[in-house]
Amino acid sequence: MTGGPADRPQPPYFAVIFTSVRRTGGDDEYQATARRMYDLASRQPGFLGFETARDPGGLGISVSYWDSREAIERWKADVEHREAQRRGRNDWYERYRVRVCRVEREHGGPPLSHIS
Amino acid sequence: MTGGPADRPQPPYFAVIFTSVRRTGGDDEYQATARRMYDLASRQPGFLGFETARDPGGLGISVSYWDSREAIERWKADVEHREAQRRGRNDWYERYRVRVCRVEREHGGPPLSHIS
Repeated sequence: MTGGPADRPQPPYFAVIFTSVRRTGGDDEYQATARRMYDLASRQPGFLGFETARDPGGLGISVSYWDSREAIERWKADVEHREAQRRGRNDWYERYRVRVCRVEREHGGPPLSHIS
Repeated sequence: MTGGPADRPQPPYFAVIFTSVRRTGGDDEYQATARRMYDLASRQPGFLGFETARDPGGLGISVSYWDSREAIERWKADVEHREAQRRGRNDWYERYRVRVCRVEREHGGPPLSHIS
């Protein structure tokens, strides 16, 4: 689930920025669910890539990339994903924020390897 | 520079997603520059907030939030920031990617504290 920055095709495309602060405890179940959600998301139509980072004991930022708003809506509505969202709200996150964005342009250094 | 997720006014607004993999070494100078850039950025017109997370030894994701594309362009062109960007490309980052986004909608849990 971790790796280098995701290298994507040309904009425009879409991104979901998920920022969160974890509660303490429940780590094993959380990690297993996070892996499962990555596996599921990466098989969804329109999935382009995923990046995640968490400061030890602090803020976590995960960004998923998609080819359309509709792909984001479909993934949000996935039954197993909805159950994970519910667990996140109730058990795993002290607080979180979800932002849906349109990526308008990008630049960077040498070509980066794909994560997905 | 770290803290909870940034709570922002209503969309639309703009975000810069900066993902990077650090080279090893140069940590003190890098940290001092990162702090200085946060101080400078947070005093720019149009700055709304900042979030950052880095997996130990791995991927880092920083997101800054702005009220317009023009504010992002002005900050990108700041002389001291340009020098930091040059150092980043040459010395600090093995690879990186910058994505400029329009935040179209957001949701989350209870109100979050501001970082800035």
